Amino acid sequence: MSEQAPRTLLFGVGLGPGDPDYMTVRARDIILKADRLVHFCKRGRRGNARVTADAIIAPDTAREIELAFPVTTEVPVEDQGYSGPIAAFYDAAAERLADEMQAGRTIAVLCDGDPFFYGSFMHLWRRLAHRFPTEVVPGVTGMAGAWTRAAAPITWGDDVMTVLPGTLAEGELTRRLVDTDAAVIMKLGRNLPKVRRALQRAGLINRAIYVERATMADQRVERLSEKQDDEAPYFSMILVPGEGRRL
Amino acid sequence: MSEQAPRTLLFGVGLGPGDPDYMTVRARDIILKADRLVHFCKRGRRGNARVTADAIIAPDTAREIELAFPVTTEVPVEDQGYSGPIAAFYDAAAERLADEMQAGRTIAVLCDGDPFFYGSFMHLWRRLAHRFPTEVVPGVTGMAGAWTRAAAPITWGDDVMTVLPGTLAEGELTRRLVDTDAAVIMKLGRNLPKVRRALQRAGLINRAIYVERATMADQRVERLSEKQDDEAPYFSMILVPGEGRRL
Ligand SMILES: C[S@@+](CC[C@H](N)C(=O)[O-])C[C@H]1O[C@@H](n2cnc3c(N)ncnc32)[C@H](O)[C@@H]1O
Ligand SMILES: C[S@@+](CC[C@H](N)C(=O)[O-])C[C@H]1O[C@@H](n2cnc3c(N)ncnc32)[C@H](O)[C@@H]1O
Repeated sequence: MSEQAPRTLLFGVGLGPGDPDYMTVRARDIILKADRLVHFCKRGRRGNARVTADAIIAPDTAREIELAFPVTTEVPVEDQGYSGPIAAFYDAAAERLADEMQAGRTIAVLCDGDPFFYGSFMHLWRRLAHRFPTEVVPGVTGMAGAWTRAAAPITWGDDVMTVLPGTLAEGELTRRLVDTDAAVIMKLGRNLPKVRRALQRAGLINRAIYVERATMADQRVERLSEKQDDEAPYFSMILVPGEGRRL
Repeated sequence: MSEQAPRTLLFGVGLGPGDPDYMTVRARDIILKADRLVHFCKRGRRGNARVTADAIIAPDTAREIELAFPVTTEVPVEDQGYSGPIAAFYDAAAERLADEMQAGRTIAVLCDGDPFFYGSFMHLWRRLAHRFPTEVVPGVTGMAGAWTRAAAPITWGDDVMTVLPGTLAEGELTRRLVDTDAAVIMKLGRNLPKVRRALQRAGLINRAIYVERATMADQRVERLSEKQDDEAPYFSMILVPGEGRRL
């Protein structure tokens, strides 16, 4: 007697940094075939991963499931009891997707960049992957899109690279920036003034590159030292390219 | 009068971690169209990126340019005068490609993972990108392939992630492992015994996952604590997944 592998029902699909040509072949195939397309968004706005997918699928309300965050994700979880509502949100979202899968439908959760790198999908995965056959499709990360478009190779030779969330305290950011060869600072938003001070204190301000909406239509790349304002949208980051061994 | 953008001649193309389905749509298009396909390899062996591309293009000697490293890349550059021969190798390779481009031919350099993340391509890019119109195509990194196949989300919440070359000294590896939330240790090879000791000293040995040839046909994933031998091929790495905020 032979056993058949159970049919995969849950897909976590990395869509890459924004340019639809940076989707993988596997991501494309899954998006074209899945019964339900799920994406995270802010209330009343389409999520970025879904916009990326527009290149291959028209909006199709019968297939789509929007998961609108109950609160803004730019507030530290520690503040204002954010963690309670958001856990409840993930619980409810997971149950909604479980119902679909119990009815035999395949679900593709569209993810920004790579699903397992600071991804919201991970909170669904943790609730569902042990219950339903699951496949995760890696993606080009936002940071790879950013260093490519900044024409800034990020690590050379034996460079150490540190990825830092901009949410860390200023002293902590400074200490870690001093102690690394190359850095990527994610989750900027309203953290930019603090991050700028940390880079200054670490003596790295002149090496820092600011990248906004990397690989998307309205991308911006500039030296941080030349950026006049302290506005930074959700999709922005800072790169400090390594200066390791050139051969 | 309108000026035309000069035709792109040099492409650095990230092919992803190994599974050809993890190539991007852009990488595929360029590989299908470029006049010359360039890849790095060890003498007498096809390079890994070229093997990945087999899924879409048959070996075609008229189109291919192999760049065979003069020495093994697993030896630290500091040792045995490695740095002189390898710089000469990159100089000669760059001139060879420059000749092709001067003759009007487009060149696609096939890269493992992402071209600007510890990539050999960077040494060609530095010699050629100011001379010829260039496009770099980001790719899914080897580490993203590894954490996906290990079913190990790498960073949660405000986790700090550190990427460490296994070539660093044991004390340095230990110190940096103690001071991070999540880690990726690349360039294992004969560094594995040292890396294992550093993980032990940092108290992380039981969280470490060993991944060999992630997403390739002969992939292996196991807990480092269960891996009996200290053999590690070129394409292997260790992951220490973060344990940050679960929502
Ligand atoms: C919750 S994390 C998700 C990261 C994503 N999973 C990835 O692989 O890039 C969101 C952060 O990623 C960064 N980011 C992702 N894509 C970006 C892009 N295209 N341009 C600039 N920043 C980006 C921003 O710093 C943003 O605050
Ligand atoms: C010179 S670096 C190139 C990295 C590549 N540019 C990338 O984006 O992953 C080579 C190292 O990458 C790691 N690596 C790349 N692809 C891998 C894979 N599929 N499986 C395991 N390790 C990989 C190994 O640690 C190897 O020693």
